[in-house]
Amino acid sequence: MNKYAHETVPTEYIETDGVRFAYRRFGRPGRTPLLFLGYFNSNMDAWDPVVTNSLAADHEVILFDNAGVGASGGETPYTVAEMTRDCRTFCAALGLSAIDVLGFSLGGMIAQQLTLDDPQLVQRLILLGTGPRGGEGMTFTELSAEEQADPIAFLLGAFFSPSDASQAAGREYVKRLDSRKEDRDLPVSGNSAVAQLAAIREWGTVPASNRYATLKNIAHPTLIVHGSKDIVVAPINALVLAERLPNAQLIVYPDSSHGTHYQHTPLFLEHVNLFFRAGDSSGDER
Amino acid sequence: MNKYAHETVPTEYIETDGVRFAYRRFGRPGRTPLLFLGYFNSNMDAWDPVVTNSLAADHEVILFDNAGVGASGGETPYTVAEMTRDCRTFCAALGLSAIDVLGFSLGGMIAQQLTLDDPQLVQRLILLGTGPRGGEGMTFTELSAEEQADPIAFLLGAFFSPSDASQAAGREYVKRLDSRKEDRDLPVSGNSAVAQLAAIREWGTVPASNRYATLKNIAHPTLIVHGSKDIVVAPINALVLAERLPNAQLIVYPDSSHGTHYQHTPLFLEHVNLFFRAGDSSGDER
Repeated sequence: MNKYAHETVPTEYIETDGVRFAYRRFGRPGRTPLLFLGYFNSNMDAWDPVVTNSLAADHEVILFDNAGVGASGGETPYTVAEMTRDCRTFCAALGLSAIDVLGFSLGGMIAQQLTLDDPQLVQRLILLGTGPRGGEGMTFTELSAEEQADPIAFLLGAFFSPSDASQAAGREYVKRLDSRKEDRDLPVSGNSAVAQLAAIREWGTVPASNRYATLKNIAHPTLIVHGSKDIVVAPINALVLAERLPNAQLIVYPDSSHGTHYQHTPLFLEHVNLFFRAGDSSGDER
Repeated sequence: MNKYAHETVPTEYIETDGVRFAYRRFGRPGRTPLLFLGYFNSNMDAWDPVVTNSLAADHEVILFDNAGVGASGGETPYTVAEMTRDCRTFCAALGLSAIDVLGFSLGGMIAQQLTLDDPQLVQRLILLGTGPRGGEGMTFTELSAEEQADPIAFLLGAFFSPSDASQAAGREYVKRLDSRKEDRDLPVSGNSAVAQLAAIREWGTVPASNRYATLKNIAHPTLIVHGSKDIVVAPINALVLAERLPNAQLIVYPDSSHGTHYQHTPLFLEHVNLFFRAGDSSGDER
């Protein structure tokens, strides 16, 4: 265990291919590192410290800003495929040859593409609130690059259900996001948000043929987690993934939206630990 | 802990309302008993001893044959509603005032109806390989009352996926079913099978209006478990339940069919224990 936690780990930088990537690396070294890939318009500070610190007890955790995002240099590209290329560049610069990946929403799209593009690099996948390429209702017509002008209202409306219990969990989550006081990340620029939105819309476009055809090639042990009332990525997309990924386990939590893992956090963390402990999710865990 | 296990617990009988019900009761008394409700054409011997014995470590487990099934007297009715009435009669005869219910397939239909009809009786629900009233493709047109002429072929074909890993798990499951040597249950009669088939088809009929309208009334903590390739009850039905039951958690396991919980058994048992331990699944588990 190194000495840092989510709140205290310094932001580091590594430059490669002309891009200076910002990242934070902490937790328990020695096992496969766990790379976090975040949602639309988010930076490293958007991760819940309860989740990152808890997973850091058993894993080395790596947060980073992809090209053009937050404190990283370069420009945000307009497709998930190019974001994935940038992510691979970052991994190569750090000398990572085997990683587990936790991707949330847009991050889950990049995680899928990364696994397809570099199946040797990725060992295990955790896909949160995301969907397959060309999924159901994933063109995000109601989302805009300015959506987060009031970030707290955005989070409470999109990540949590309207119920009192969910909204209360949302307010707790928002509070936790403030626990890191020093060395905060830079906000996501408008240009980057525009590019990210284009990328998720391109990802969500239903292809003329062979919809979902590539999913069978992601045979890695995968844990899919989704909210039963996710208003950003409809829950059917999680089932599409679970039905087509050869080795995926799906968990849906009740009365929760896009941020279900920040609402049912203790149970989510227990399920993640079970997933990692099981060795795989194919029944070989006996 | 009483002295019996799945393999050794004697079959007992209790007569009420003119029906003599066969049942087996074992495990750890003192907490809410866990009532098992089985699938189409099955009797008490069809439960996996690994599942019943494992859950009996923390719960009193009650297996029974509903009216007209196996060693029970009476006649099997032609609707889930009437089967539920018989189940309540049995519970009342045993003096049960609070139970948890684990229902598999047809048993999960009865479990839902029981919760609607007697919401005070049922505390927690586990729904395995089942679907809502009027679900998707739940008229079971390919099922017949004679289906189980070759019961092992039926089980391997319907409960397990075609993959080598799943078929191997299926053969292990079939072996485990033989571990009880004495005091075996009676087979399900042809008449009972015909009635059960009518009941599940009636349950599966899509209503002219208000489809799924009653699901919001099952607010009990619920764990739904389904196989990603369930060929008997399509996985979409599990998602329909998860989206509409107010307090349900859904888990889907990979490469598995109707008997997914008999394939991913160790992980399933860990998930069930987490479900019970969490107190509920609504986020209050903190």
